[in-house]
Amino acid sequence: MIGVFDSGLGGLTALCELVKLLPGEDFVYFGDTGRVPYGSKSADTVIRYSTEIMRFLSGFGIDAALVACGTASSAALPTLRREFPIPVFGVIDAAAAAAAAATVTRRVGVIGTATTVRLGAFERGIKSLDPGISVTSVACPLFVHLVEDGFTDPDDPVTLAAAERYLSPLRGTGIDTLILGCTHYPIISSAIAKTLPGVRLISSSKAAAEKLAESYGTGTAHGARGTIRCFVSDTPEGFESAGQIFMGDIPLGHAEFVDISKY
Amino acid sequence: MIGVFDSGLGGLTALCELVKLLPGEDFVYFGDTGRVPYGSKSADTVIRYSTEIMRFLSGFGIDAALVACGTASSAALPTLRREFPIPVFGVIDAAAAAAAAATVTRRVGVIGTATTVRLGAFERGIKSLDPGISVTSVACPLFVHLVEDGFTDPDDPVTLAAAERYLSPLRGTGIDTLILGCTHYPIISSAIAKTLPGVRLISSSKAAAEKLAESYGTGTAHGARGTIRCFVSDTPEGFESAGQIFMGDIPLGHAEFVDISKY
Repeated sequence: MIGVFDSGLGGLTALCELVKLLPGEDFVYFGDTGRVPYGSKSADTVIRYSTEIMRFLSGFGIDAALVACGTASSAALPTLRREFPIPVFGVIDAAAAAAAAATVTRRVGVIGTATTVRLGAFERGIKSLDPGISVTSVACPLFVHLVEDGFTDPDDPVTLAAAERYLSPLRGTGIDTLILGCTHYPIISSAIAKTLPGVRLISSSKAAAEKLAESYGTGTAHGARGTIRCFVSDTPEGFESAGQIFMGDIPLGHAEFVDISKY
Repeated sequence: MIGVFDSGLGGLTALCELVKLLPGEDFVYFGDTGRVPYGSKSADTVIRYSTEIMRFLSGFGIDAALVACGTASSAALPTLRREFPIPVFGVIDAAAAAAAAATVTRRVGVIGTATTVRLGAFERGIKSLDPGISVTSVACPLFVHLVEDGFTDPDDPVTLAAAERYLSPLRGTGIDTLILGCTHYPIISSAIAKTLPGVRLISSSKAAAEKLAESYGTGTAHGARGTIRCFVSDTPEGFESAGQIFMGDIPLGHAEFVDISKY
């Protein structure tokens, strides 16, 4: 069984990829909907919340965990890897590797939440692979809310205006590759692509899911479709319909409430 | 001493008004920055969080409390008034009274978070004063994030595009008065006013502060400037500079961290 968590529902983009890659596997997903978002909160608070969630997920006897949140991966991975005796994957390394492999101009952009950009983990990940690559990081705090509040049409004028505000400084930097360093961003990738034409977008969710699936192998697949159990820290009403935006055609069941601050 | 709380920093707009009206009074402010925002969370979760905060504030021996948050006022006031033996003021009643007194067309608009609009407390407040007033409520979930992420210039194209999206349905309804049902909204009132020219805006923060000051009297003023103590549930770094946006020229000190889920 694999545990997956995010500040809210954005991490379902990673779960969706994982289910496609490991269809026989069982998954338990936790979305911290009672405390979402993480991207404007401090690293200390994000570490505390992530540790509580990992304690909760560990109760299911998970064999591996995916921190499907750019902010929690940036802030909490070292702590979680030290405290929990299972492989803990984040969304940083695989995206950094994919970007380093993809760039021809050797100039890469990173977009994420305020805390993700401040912590600089994607940038360090890329530099550790190739110190010669130039990295420009931009915080796009409003993007997560545009996704959660439904401003997801590719031609949405509000989303396009926000994308123009955040991303226009990246034009002229020579980047040919951009890491979407927040698991919500693939949902508005069309607006991002329109603002930065010709730039290759790397989904950190997809890259992380592929890396986990590769490391974890397919040996655990038992033929039958695996199960997905979902938990949230706000009341679970509305989870199924809201979550489906992120899951495409993979059916998502009900979620159960958990008082996560007790863990 | 008066306790004031909000999901985050928006309630400082109400604290600012209170300090002007009761300059000799002592205040304790709690901003739930570790769990902000409330507006997209369920009523049950908002009631649970508000109760924890009132338990914390009660430890200071406060004589009265102001729930300086449209969502928490909409969801939690009956519970808090039942559970705590002090006057608990919210932002609903005073704004409803001000709107009912101001409207000439007897058509009033209300804007707030998704949960505030779903709960309908402002609408019920107006109708209880004058059932003949027609009320149109619109959820504007992105506004709180536009304020928190700094899209506060009166000519900001992102904020104007979002205001147009949310508020254009209100044009043609004949409203002449609009309640800003979230304590963040006064910060972007210029953009709101541009989208709805000629409509009188009622700040729920200001109305609530005036009502509390009137009820509470000035008898407690002891001549000297009162104190302001601030607490937050995220780490307090950055509180002072971020909070000052809401406080105008009233100086705001440091904040202290409190692990609010333990209350």
